[in-house]
Amino acid sequence: MSDAPTTTTRSRENTRARLLDAAFDVFADVGLDAASVEAVCERAGFTRGAFYSNFESKDELFMELAQTVSERKLTAVTDRVREFTGQAPPAERPEEIVRQLVDVSLDSRQGVLLMSEIRARAMRDARMAASYREWSEGMVQRVAGMADDLIAAYGLGLRLTAADFARIMLEVWESTLVNAVIDELDDAATGTRMHSRTQALVAAVVEGFAD
Amino acid sequence: MSDAPTTTTRSRENTRARLLDAAFDVFADVGLDAASVEAVCERAGFTRGAFYSNFESKDELFMELAQTVSERKLTAVTDRVREFTGQAPPAERPEEIVRQLVDVSLDSRQGVLLMSEIRARAMRDARMAASYREWSEGMVQRVAGMADDLIAAYGLGLRLTAADFARIMLEVWESTLVNAVIDELDDAATGTRMHSRTQALVAAVVEGFAD
Repeated sequence: MSDAPTTTTRSRENTRARLLDAAFDVFADVGLDAASVEAVCERAGFTRGAFYSNFESKDELFMELAQTVSERKLTAVTDRVREFTGQAPPAERPEEIVRQLVDVSLDSRQGVLLMSEIRARAMRDARMAASYREWSEGMVQRVAGMADDLIAAYGLGLRLTAADFARIMLEVWESTLVNAVIDELDDAATGTRMHSRTQALVAAVVEGFAD
Repeated sequence: MSDAPTTTTRSRENTRARLLDAAFDVFADVGLDAASVEAVCERAGFTRGAFYSNFESKDELFMELAQTVSERKLTAVTDRVREFTGQAPPAERPEEIVRQLVDVSLDSRQGVLLMSEIRARAMRDARMAASYREWSEGMVQRVAGMADDLIAAYGLGLRLTAADFARIMLEVWESTLVNAVIDELDDAATGTRMHSRTQALVAAVVEGFAD
């Protein structure tokens, strides 16, 4: 096998990407329940045949959309963590790192609504539940890995396991974003609330952070 | 005004209680979006007139249902906390108290689904958002009050403010319940997971708890 993607592979990836973009637009307009495969195809300019040669179902499409959105966010956070932990001694104060990681992990109102509706669907549908579980455990493992790296680079201590910490951190972030939508906060106010909640939690569970 | 409720007041409360019970059944059958005022009235054996002399809208009914469910749970927890903090010196070890408080705060699958759907609605509807916000802040204040009482009775320390602690605790509980539904856990397995997550968080943020 060659390293370079073939034209067919590229064209297939392009089709998938356009369907995912269209799915996000249709979701933003009508929500998850009302979003139909037809509407997504029409928006993307593809036939249903093209859709079903790329995705098994509407649920598979939206789960992949959620994964794409969170993957992008997580990659940005991981890159930033690498910058910090790649230097010895670490160049930034821990509070400054937490601040920068919060900044790259903020989400759009539509992204927050999408995750909430996918979670609601996973509570009622076993196949969606399986994908959701796999995605969610992957997020916990990656955030736990980053926490371990940062804790080690700074010589700090964690008062609970990295996985427990990651789970709580992700729950606090998600809930803060949901409440920011409910409270109709703008991006700046959402960011401020995220910072203060994240710093409070990190200061409580990381030994040596607030000293 | 007399202290004893009049017959009219009692009958009115009885009507509201029957409408709330019916609303819970209808919700369990069809979910929040599909639940109609008509279906709730039919189930309760009341006319639409009786409904609208008690509730302004379907949303008001369901928000009050959520409040009733969480009020009942919170009262059970508060009573238990009073038992513990009313004795000097406190009779139980802190871990045992956390265990017992988790036991009374478990929720049914339908209760978890109801709260999730109400939250989803609050993200899209300003009036529901206002009720949700008020309810949610009330919960935080009450849990924070209990945390303060327990911390003082046991002479322990909290590594973040009681309100920050209460907010995180409520988020962890809610998310654990949602994930238990997604993972199709039975009550026993849900309880086990709730205990281990609660103990891990409390041990990390309460000074002197795990020593």
